[in-house]
Amino acid sequence: MASSIITLLTDFGETDGFVGTMKGVIYGVNPEARIVDISHDIEPQDISSGAFVLRNSYQFFPADTIHVVVIDPGVGSERRILCVAANKHYFIAPDNGVLKYIYDECSNVYAVKVSNKRYFLPSVSRTFHGRDIFAPVAAHIATGLKIDELGTEVTDYERGDIPKLEETSESIAGEIVYIDRFGNLISNIPFNRLRRESGDIRRILFKGRILDHLCHSYSDGRRNEPIALVGSSGFLEIACNLANAKEKLNGKIGEKISVIFEV
Amino acid sequence: MASSIITLLTDFGETDGFVGTMKGVIYGVNPEARIVDISHDIEPQDISSGAFVLRNSYQFFPADTIHVVVIDPGVGSERRILCVAANKHYFIAPDNGVLKYIYDECSNVYAVKVSNKRYFLPSVSRTFHGRDIFAPVAAHIATGLKIDELGTEVTDYERGDIPKLEETSESIAGEIVYIDRFGNLISNIPFNRLRRESGDIRRILFKGRILDHLCHSYSDGRRNEPIALVGSSGFLEIACNLANAKEKLNGKIGEKISVIFEV
Amino acid sequence: MASSIITLLTDFGETDGFVGTMKGVIYGVNPEARIVDISHDIEPQDISSGAFVLRNSYQFFPADTIHVVVIDPGVGSERRILCVAANKHYFIAPDNGVLKYIYDECSNVYAVKVSNKRYFLPSVSRTFHGRDIFAPVAAHIATGLKIDELGTEVTDYERGDIPKLEETSESIAGEIVYIDRFGNLISNIPFNRLRRESGDIRRILFKGRILDHLCHSYSDGRRNEPIALVGSSGFLEIACNLANAKEKLNGKIGEKISVIFEV
Repeated sequence: MASSIITLLTDFGETDGFVGTMKGVIYGVNPEARIVDISHDIEPQDISSGAFVLRNSYQFFPADTIHVVVIDPGVGSERRILCVAANKHYFIAPDNGVLKYIYDECSNVYAVKVSNKRYFLPSVSRTFHGRDIFAPVAAHIATGLKIDELGTEVTDYERGDIPKLEETSESIAGEIVYIDRFGNLISNIPFNRLRRESGDIRRILFKGRILDHLCHSYSDGRRNEPIALVGSSGFLEIACNLANAKEKLNGKIGEKISVIFEV
Repeated sequence: MASSIITLLTDFGETDGFVGTMKGVIYGVNPEARIVDISHDIEPQDISSGAFVLRNSYQFFPADTIHVVVIDPGVGSERRILCVAANKHYFIAPDNGVLKYIYDECSNVYAVKVSNKRYFLPSVSRTFHGRDIFAPVAAHIATGLKIDELGTEVTDYERGDIPKLEETSESIAGEIVYIDRFGNLISNIPFNRLRRESGDIRRILFKGRILDHLCHSYSDGRRNEPIALVGSSGFLEIACNLANAKEKLNGKIGEKISVIFEV
Repeated sequence: MASSIITLLTDFGETDGFVGTMKGVIYGVNPEARIVDISHDIEPQDISSGAFVLRNSYQFFPADTIHVVVIDPGVGSERRILCVAANKHYFIAPDNGVLKYIYDECSNVYAVKVSNKRYFLPSVSRTFHGRDIFAPVAAHIATGLKIDELGTEVTDYERGDIPKLEETSESIAGEIVYIDRFGNLISNIPFNRLRRESGDIRRILFKGRILDHLCHSYSDGRRNEPIALVGSSGFLEIACNLANAKEKLNGKIGEKISVIFEV
C-alpha cells in the first residue's frame, strides 16, 4: 500500500529553500513519501489565515493523511509542538491556535505533545523546527509510527479565537475572516445558517451596501458589481465578477457582515 | 506500470490552498497519481497567457499525460467543461478558448463534454469545479477511464482567438502574445517562417527600433541592448541580455513586430 | 529500490511553466523519478543567493540525490555545464560559481563537463538548456548512469567568490551574504567561529548598532528589536522578533558585521 500522504502548510515562502529542505528530511526517513504543498505563502505569522486554509483543504485528503503546519512565531521558545488526531487525519502543529477550526469542528480530538527526541533530527536548531522536528516526525508517522510514541496526551491545548456569530430570529451577523487571491471576502457565516424556516434572505449588509439576494456563482454578477454568494468553503462571501472585491470595496479582515431574513 | 501523469495549470495562485486541495482529491481517487504543477500564477482570468504556457509545456510530457487547465472565469455558469484528446495527450479545460493552440496545431482533436456526474465529487459547488469536477475526472482518466464515459462528443468547441500573421514576399508581421518572467517579449512568429528562399533577414522592427540581425542566445547581446532571437518555444522574441526587455522597452502584449527580408 | 531524488533550483519563477516542462522531460526519461523543488524564485541571475540556498538545502537530502541548478545567465554561450560529485551528492550546474560553497566545503570534488549529446533532448535550443540538457541528464543519472559517461573530467571549474572573514584574537568580521523571506540578515560568520577559548562574545556590531549578546531564538527578542543569533544554516544573523530586520534596519547584502570577544 502507498505510504500516507504528508501535506505541508507554512509561512516559509518559496524562495529560500526551507520547504525543499523539509522534503529532503522527509524522504530521508521515508523514501516512499507522497508530499503535497498546501501553501507556503501564508503571511508570516498569520496564524488565523493559516488555520482557515487548513480547514478548507485537509478534509479533501484521504484518511490518515498527515498535515504538517508550520506557522510558528514562537519557534525556539517553550511553546509546545502537538500531534493531533481528529476526523481520521493527523496534524502536527505548534500549540498556538493554528488548529482552531479542527478543535472547533471535530468531535474526537486526541492530542499529544511531541517530545520524543528519537524521532527528531539528531541536531535540533532553535530556529528551524520545521526541518528538525516537524518533518522527521511526520515522516515517521507516515511509516506507521503510533502517535503515542511521540509523547504524552495533552488536553489544555490552545483552542484559538474564532469570531462568534450573532444570531437573532431575523438576522445573523459575522465578520470577514479570510481574503483569497481573487480578492473574495470570506466570512465566518456558514451556508447552513442561511436557511430559515421563517423565510428567505431579505438583504445582506456589508460596508454600508445592501445586496438583495444570494447569487449562485461569480458569473451571476455584473462586471465589477459586488455580489454575495456561498463560496467553495461553505461560507458566505462577498465577491465581484471578473474583479477583485477586496480592492473594489477596500475590504479587510474583521469587517462585519450581516444577513437579514424575511419574517 | 506507473499511472499517467496529471499536470495542473490554473490561475489559483499558491496562497489559498486551492491547488493542494485538488491534489488531495486526485490522490483520493488514484493513490498512485504523479502530479506536476505547470503554473498557478497565470493572471486571474488571463485565458490567452494560460493557453500559451500550456502549448509550450504539454508537448514535453510523456504520451497519455492528462493536462488539467482551470482558468475559468465562467465557473458555475452554463459554460461547458471539455475533455479533449489530441496529439496523444488529454486536456480537461473549460470551453473558453484556453485550448486554442491545441486546436490550432493538432490534427486529430476529439472532444467530449464532461457531464457524467459519476466521476465528480458527490457534492459539487458552484465556485470550485477544479476541486469538484476537474480533479476527480482527471484522476479517473489516470486510472484508465475511457473519456467516452465522461459524456458525448462535441465539435463546436470554442476555438479561441489567435492573432493572424501578415505575410508578403518581403515581410512577415505578427504581435507580442506573451511576456515571460524575465521580461522577454514573445511574438506569434514561428521560427520556420523566418527562413526564406529569397533571402535572409534584413531587419526586425519593433516599437520604432530597428534590429539588423537575429541573435542566437541572450548572451549574444550587449547588456541592456534589445536583441531579437528565437526563444525556447520556437517563436521570435525581443529580449535584453541581463536585463528586462518589457521594462526597458515598455513592451506590451498586442504590440506589432515585423521582419523584413532581403529580396 | 526507489529512484534517486532530483531537486530543482532555478531563477525561472513559477509563472511561465518552465519548471513544469523540465519535470515533463524528467518523467519522460525516468517514470519513477521523485522530484523536489528547492526554489524557483531566486532573483534572475543572482548566482550568489542561489549558491547559498543550495548549500543550506542539499545536505538534508539522502545520499545520491541529484541537485539540478539552473541559474544560468550565460545560457547558449560557450559556458560549460558541469556534473559534480561531492559529499555523496550530485550537482548539475553551469560553471559560473553557483556551486562555490560546495567547492569550498567539500573535500572530494569530482567534476565532469556535460557534453555527451546522447543524454540531451534530440533538439537543443540556445535559450532553455534546463529543459534540453539539465533535465534529461539528471533523469539519466537517477536511472543509474555513471557521470563519467557525460564527458571528461575538468579541474579548472569556476570556484566563485566567497567573502573572506577577517579574524584577530579579539574579533571576527564578515558580511551579510543572504536575506531570507522573513528579512533575516544572514552573514558568512559560521557558528563554530563564535566560540573562543579566550572568552565569550562582548558585543556584535552592525550598522552602528551594538548588540551585547547572542540570542538563542527569534522569540528571545522584544518585538521589533534587532537581535543577533545563529540561524538554521549555522551562520550568525541579525533578526527582529515578529518583524523584518531587512526593512527595520535597511539591511543589504554586502554590509559588514563584526563580533568582539572578551579578552
